[in-house]
Amino acid sequence: MAFFPASLETLVDKFAALPGIGRKSAQRLAFHVLALSDEEARSFADAILDAKSNVHCCPVCQNLTEGELCSICASPTRDKGTICVVSEPRDVLSIERGHEYNGTYHVLHGVLSPMSHVGPDDIRIKELLVRVAENEVEEVIMATNPDTEGEATAMYLSRLLKPFGTKVTRLAYGIPVGSNLEFTDDATLNRAIEGRTEM
Amino acid sequence: MAFFPASLETLVDKFAALPGIGRKSAQRLAFHVLALSDEEARSFADAILDAKSNVHCCPVCQNLTEGELCSICASPTRDKGTICVVSEPRDVLSIERGHEYNGTYHVLHGVLSPMSHVGPDDIRIKELLVRVAENEVEEVIMATNPDTEGEATAMYLSRLLKPFGTKVTRLAYGIPVGSNLEFTDDATLNRAIEGRTEM
Repeated sequence: MAFFPASLETLVDKFAALPGIGRKSAQRLAFHVLALSDEEARSFADAILDAKSNVHCCPVCQNLTEGELCSICASPTRDKGTICVVSEPRDVLSIERGHEYNGTYHVLHGVLSPMSHVGPDDIRIKELLVRVAENEVEEVIMATNPDTEGEATAMYLSRLLKPFGTKVTRLAYGIPVGSNLEFTDDATLNRAIEGRTEM
Repeated sequence: MAFFPASLETLVDKFAALPGIGRKSAQRLAFHVLALSDEEARSFADAILDAKSNVHCCPVCQNLTEGELCSICASPTRDKGTICVVSEPRDVLSIERGHEYNGTYHVLHGVLSPMSHVGPDDIRIKELLVRVAENEVEEVIMATNPDTEGEATAMYLSRLLKPFGTKVTRLAYGIPVGSNLEFTDDATLNRAIEGRTEM
């Protein structure tokens, strides 16, 4: 028995299908949309269609873009000889936030994960190899997440890249800035000791 | 500095404007939409527009409906002499879930709240008075939430309805079925003792 009108139920279903949105939240969101002005509702719907139709992957680095190349690959000031490999587009944003890195990126759109049936052909590894083979790349920095799958992906890629003679590096592990030794987990602390640097 | 394409940023903004969705969740939702098929994205956008254009308030009970009357007001088997007053459309759903009540509803679309500047003219009180004045209504059941604002609204309405000679009742307060006396708050327990019934 549905007591909500059918098109409201449909909208609730759409919201409930989004990740992390339960049935109750979906109802609240749908009611919110009903309370929007006609213009606001239309611009919400347009935003979905626009994002879907305008956004595609940069043919070089696979990051999301609306232009032919992404703004980083298109920039003449970025160092094309350094490629930072990340798993998701949002990771690019995280690194850019630091205003420190001046190279380019390569977005894998995932990590290797045998448990979830994600193999080398399911993420953008081939595109990275082509890029390294056809351009003068001095260094590839592995910036996948420091978890099991991110580690395994970085390890796998570094083996694939070895024949090209390119330097392959990994982000440093260690204690986060501003944290506390007492609350740092053992694995991180061990890595911080291993990776100690001269002062 | 935006490193996401503009139309993706716009979509993130739209999601972030929804209640209870923060910036990070909005990003996750926007990425999810990008990963949808063209057809799925279009049907999501259509769901927003359809709900917005098809759903309106039932002219009798003010519940949301797509038809001329809502399914409850249009049903010949529902008792039109009993009106259950609730604050939101979702409350109708809650009561219908019990399969016990066979009367009609009146949805106020809010409660009186001086703190939020919601006065008698901002919710559907006039429509209720017209309904009671023009029809043979035996009983009006106040089913607003048992909080301060819900209570005040019920009290206010019961005074307005007194001149019509209609019986006005309030949902019973008491301990919830299946709960535990030990964990019942004092106010509820006092109300349960006041409202005790003979066995």
